[in-house]
Amino acid sequence: MRPSGRKTDQMRKVSFERGFSKHAEGSCLVKFGDTHVLCTASLEDKTPPWLRNSGKGWVTAEYGMLPRATGERMKREAATGKQGGRTQEIQRLIGRSLRAIVDLEALGERQITIDCDVIQADGGTRTASITGAWIALYDCLKWMEGRNMVKVERVLKDHVAAISCGIFANQPVIDLDYLEDSAAETDANFVMTGAGGIVEIQGTAEGKPFTEEEFSTLMQLARNGIAELVTLQKQAVA
Amino acid sequence: MRPSGRKTDQMRKVSFERGFSKHAEGSCLVKFGDTHVLCTASLEDKTPPWLRNSGKGWVTAEYGMLPRATGERMKREAATGKQGGRTQEIQRLIGRSLRAIVDLEALGERQITIDCDVIQADGGTRTASITGAWIALYDCLKWMEGRNMVKVERVLKDHVAAISCGIFANQPVIDLDYLEDSAAETDANFVMTGAGGIVEIQGTAEGKPFTEEEFSTLMQLARNGIAELVTLQKQAVA
Amino acid sequence: MRPSGRKTDQMRKVSFERGFSKHAEGSCLVKFGDTHVLCTASLEDKTPPWLRNSGKGWVTAEYGMLPRATGERMKREAATGKQGGRTQEIQRLIGRSLRAIVDLEALGERQITIDCDVIQADGGTRTASITGAWIALYDCLKWMEGRNMVKVERVLKDHVAAISCGIFANQPVIDLDYLEDSAAETDANFVMTGAGGIVEIQGTAEGKPFTEEEFSTLMQLARNGIAELVTLQKQAVA
Amino acid sequence: MRPSGRKTDQMRKVSFERGFSKHAEGSCLVKFGDTHVLCTASLEDKTPPWLRNSGKGWVTAEYGMLPRATGERMKREAATGKQGGRTQEIQRLIGRSLRAIVDLEALGERQITIDCDVIQADGGTRTASITGAWIALYDCLKWMEGRNMVKVERVLKDHVAAISCGIFANQPVIDLDYLEDSAAETDANFVMTGAGGIVEIQGTAEGKPFTEEEFSTLMQLARNGIAELVTLQKQAVA
Amino acid sequence: MRPSGRKTDQMRKVSFERGFSKHAEGSCLVKFGDTHVLCTASLEDKTPPWLRNSGKGWVTAEYGMLPRATGERMKREAATGKQGGRTQEIQRLIGRSLRAIVDLEALGERQITIDCDVIQADGGTRTASITGAWIALYDCLKWMEGRNMVKVERVLKDHVAAISCGIFANQPVIDLDYLEDSAAETDANFVMTGAGGIVEIQGTAEGKPFTEEEFSTLMQLARNGIAELVTLQKQAVA
Amino acid sequence: MRPSGRKTDQMRKVSFERGFSKHAEGSCLVKFGDTHVLCTASLEDKTPPWLRNSGKGWVTAEYGMLPRATGERMKREAATGKQGGRTQEIQRLIGRSLRAIVDLEALGERQITIDCDVIQADGGTRTASITGAWIALYDCLKWMEGRNMVKVERVLKDHVAAISCGIFANQPVIDLDYLEDSAAETDANFVMTGAGGIVEIQGTAEGKPFTEEEFSTLMQLARNGIAELVTLQKQAVA
Repeated sequence: MRPSGRKTDQMRKVSFERGFSKHAEGSCLVKFGDTHVLCTASLEDKTPPWLRNSGKGWVTAEYGMLPRATGERMKREAATGKQGGRTQEIQRLIGRSLRAIVDLEALGERQITIDCDVIQADGGTRTASITGAWIALYDCLKWMEGRNMVKVERVLKDHVAAISCGIFANQPVIDLDYLEDSAAETDANFVMTGAGGIVEIQGTAEGKPFTEEEFSTLMQLARNGIAELVTLQKQAVA
Repeated sequence: MRPSGRKTDQMRKVSFERGFSKHAEGSCLVKFGDTHVLCTASLEDKTPPWLRNSGKGWVTAEYGMLPRATGERMKREAATGKQGGRTQEIQRLIGRSLRAIVDLEALGERQITIDCDVIQADGGTRTASITGAWIALYDCLKWMEGRNMVKVERVLKDHVAAISCGIFANQPVIDLDYLEDSAAETDANFVMTGAGGIVEIQGTAEGKPFTEEEFSTLMQLARNGIAELVTLQKQAVA
Repeated sequence: MRPSGRKTDQMRKVSFERGFSKHAEGSCLVKFGDTHVLCTASLEDKTPPWLRNSGKGWVTAEYGMLPRATGERMKREAATGKQGGRTQEIQRLIGRSLRAIVDLEALGERQITIDCDVIQADGGTRTASITGAWIALYDCLKWMEGRNMVKVERVLKDHVAAISCGIFANQPVIDLDYLEDSAAETDANFVMTGAGGIVEIQGTAEGKPFTEEEFSTLMQLARNGIAELVTLQKQAVA
Repeated sequence: MRPSGRKTDQMRKVSFERGFSKHAEGSCLVKFGDTHVLCTASLEDKTPPWLRNSGKGWVTAEYGMLPRATGERMKREAATGKQGGRTQEIQRLIGRSLRAIVDLEALGERQITIDCDVIQADGGTRTASITGAWIALYDCLKWMEGRNMVKVERVLKDHVAAISCGIFANQPVIDLDYLEDSAAETDANFVMTGAGGIVEIQGTAEGKPFTEEEFSTLMQLARNGIAELVTLQKQAVA
Repeated sequence: MRPSGRKTDQMRKVSFERGFSKHAEGSCLVKFGDTHVLCTASLEDKTPPWLRNSGKGWVTAEYGMLPRATGERMKREAATGKQGGRTQEIQRLIGRSLRAIVDLEALGERQITIDCDVIQADGGTRTASITGAWIALYDCLKWMEGRNMVKVERVLKDHVAAISCGIFANQPVIDLDYLEDSAAETDANFVMTGAGGIVEIQGTAEGKPFTEEEFSTLMQLARNGIAELVTLQKQAVA
Repeated sequence: MRPSGRKTDQMRKVSFERGFSKHAEGSCLVKFGDTHVLCTASLEDKTPPWLRNSGKGWVTAEYGMLPRATGERMKREAATGKQGGRTQEIQRLIGRSLRAIVDLEALGERQITIDCDVIQADGGTRTASITGAWIALYDCLKWMEGRNMVKVERVLKDHVAAISCGIFANQPVIDLDYLEDSAAETDANFVMTGAGGIVEIQGTAEGKPFTEEEFSTLMQLARNGIAELVTLQKQAVA
């Protein structure tokens, strides 16, 4: 049994609150249960140095956690003077996931930075970040379309969303919360598009190694969950 | 006339949302109009090195802004590798303000860290932080009282709240928003207790120097505003 | 056709030079074709703070590249003052992979640090690192066994090795070199044990998303390649 | 009674040694009793990036303390790798204070950096710094005037000087030395111009909050003291 | 008697393995006994900012040690976030030594960076680095000559090589290994050209001060040793 | 002819102002002409970690330059966030030089830190630092002797002083000032004891290599100069 009483293939309640920030060109407070992430999209009218005069733009991401987003207060990365390895891993993953569904030429020589800041954490912050970042990105592109800068449908090729699956108490389950995550034997994150293409897979054995069959089961769970997330994204921006 | 249409002695709408974070011992989302700050109180069962075996505890604060809390995205301090001078100034101010109304001996050898993270900024983030931090601190102490660790009324000697005043378009006004703040000739922050004692005064001439009379007027505005804030704090924790 | 003329399921020539370093308790220069990584194992007679008095030890890894290991000279991380996100990602991966086949209780309260330093890079530095690190770890444990500190077979539960696979020019291929890696549409790294258990999977779409079928083909390629690497490890330590 | 035997409204002996440094365009060793600060003004023929092509120049300040300027040796900030919060607070204050009396357009697109380095500390280092910095700035402008770069009287609109006041042993006193400073209940720094305008006020309750009346008394003490400092500045540059 | 059984004027076996790295424009694995240093030369088609438009190029060096190059594992400088004083001292020395025999005008507005990375250390890493760096530099210039960028004989004015000498067990000896180095009373490093000119001398009393006579003896030993090293360099590039 | 009109073997006017700092256990403002360095000695009642329970103490040094000690303002190392290579080289040299004449066992488990801060620079800051540091150290030990902590003559085995020599305009000269230093072909620093023993030699060819004969001449000049400095030290502490 799952600590939350959820069924093995049941995700937590997911919600998107668009326009959470009055300043950002696009923003969204995404909630996967008690995991709350604020995603903002910031447009800059210049591209990184390595893309100057290439006609291409760039989409990048930064990730952070408020010090007391977690059960125990963590040190503030600004105070320790560097971003930890986990932070860097996650923000690189978010950036890659978004770029997989963006046409950088259609964006033009501009940069969009998606900041994903975890207000409250309860497992799955990276998957919530990716899923919410898509909304912030969409709204930013809409903002740009309203100013005749781009056509949304030309820049944004598809949806992208992410979910974690894992083996908890010998059972494959979807969307692990913190209690499950810290006890799971295997933990995998899947990033997929609206069309069902796979963008990123990260699977890790926390305890004993896992089998190909177990992994297939996790992928199937993820496929269904991500389809549901994409539906929710569509409703949110409808 | 003020850009917001407010009267010279009219503060923005102020609200406190207690228990915003499920993990922290005390937490509060404070809003001064469009300035939103999440204040969390984290209890640690140890005191800083210089207070070991003194019987005294410590209250400290950290301050941060989400990168897109502002109109233009700012660089993430965790990524630049250091906290700027403004950040450090503000977090030192918040810490001093709270310690002014805490009996550190009654707290015992423990440390409470108040994190003030600006979710959205529109002027007055430091005054909102101090005012909201008091609520987070109160709730943390209540949490401790519920576990027989302290008596709230022995540790918390009074309320503390803060407001900015300034001279905008030649008129003394209270609670400057960003538009006013960036155009004000003089800008002053006041921190006072529930009993009306002054904890901190910071007055700065942004353009031409100001006179003692002007400063007195600002202080009078602040006194009234802070009295109102203290009333709101009392209602919030009632 | 692959630039190197290799068949799609053909790995580069792999070799292990044990005892490359006279100081380390275990060491190995591993070569996957033109990718050369020096792996050293260093034993310390203490465990990290969070394991004190737990009876458990720890295995960790650090990763680095010489500035001119690559086609273009990269900035020295010691000079820039921080380890990049990619470096941190890789060293965390190496550490997790090794811990998956180590019994930390049987190791006792000691720490073994595996340094993987890339002398020359031509794609696949992380997979070569993991595969060579196992040899260095084995030799370190043998060194300890010679001093009656541990029994190798109790600490080292299995082999672990890693290989990359990817889709290059529309074909699934194994063990990508730099030319392939920089042009691949999909890139995946697999870490598996001698018994065939999966320890880690990382799959990334560089261009268009990939399908589950494509991923299965890559995993099959990896399974065969890793079996071959484990055989080579066995020969090396025989 | 004050530890030094001074009367409550009696400042320490103040002196200015102009031209202390042979290299700087302007320099001054200022002494407030045993507090000795070397102020140097360095001219650069360029303005900060945000003022390029604005026709305006900039005046900024940096502050530092020699490690053994204090009773206990402090860690060298260059060795710890960052400037502390107090250092940043003070150097921002010095810069703002000087800019309050400078016409940045008359200065033209140039930058003057005032370095205030505390050779020996005995309380009041920030007020001595501001007061001495004015002399260094004056001499730098004179140096420029001698090269037909500016007219001093057009750039330098007024004097600026600073003094601390506080409540020590229940009595309002001026110009606190270290012994007084560390025991004062209230500590306030005032920065004023030659014309008596207020540039900056910083008042802090170290122990119990203070009243408006107490603050008025401190401001009156400061007003007299600063008038005296301005007279001394005038004599120094006469 | 020397721990290695060498005669007082006998250097360790010295070898140069050219072309050790497939990417670098010049490279050499130099061995002085068990001290192994990989030297790579990297050409960049730009000169440092202070030489722009001067017609001159620049030769610089960086130095590093793999963490387990030594008997005890040292902290990785990339992880600690800064290069230690010893590292900086050595890399500055290598750069100066090479520039002493290079005609920077004949090089043209280009920069060559020599990376000296210690793979294994047994005393004398800086002298091995300088001696091997000359080979890497030579090969880089040959590479450039092959592309009609420079004439080697116009850029490279002479050989440069280095050796340590010291007083060990009251006897002047050449080319100290680690055991000797850590017990030597006096330790001196000499850098000389093929023509016998002195480029750099660094002599340090580790225990009691040394005399001018002792120093002369060390210099004589060094002169002979460096002549031998230059002969070996000539054979290596013949 | 030397720019200053000095004879080739004539040092600049040297003076020591003892007790320059009221806080330090020992202090000295040393002047070699226009080079002014403040040396302070700070006693701590603990030894570094690697000497705990060894019965031995430690003497170490830190070096810094005020930003405008030089003709052009240099960046403040505290602001750039690290000490440069030159700074580290010099402070290591000062520390070694002092330890050469201190009996660390007689000092007992204490640490003395000598801070050498350059107030004004005109060449030869490292040699002035060493020479002045001896005075600060002496006075610190006297302070300790006055409290029955040590016997000065047991801890301080000898004098130590330093001077630079170089070849300027084809002539060997002593005690180079900045004009000479920046044009010298060869630059050498010598550190010797009162008894004439050599503690440290650093010779560098800035332009063309130098000969053994030239170096001998420099050493002879240095020997005479240092003897004179030791005499001045003796007078200063008499």
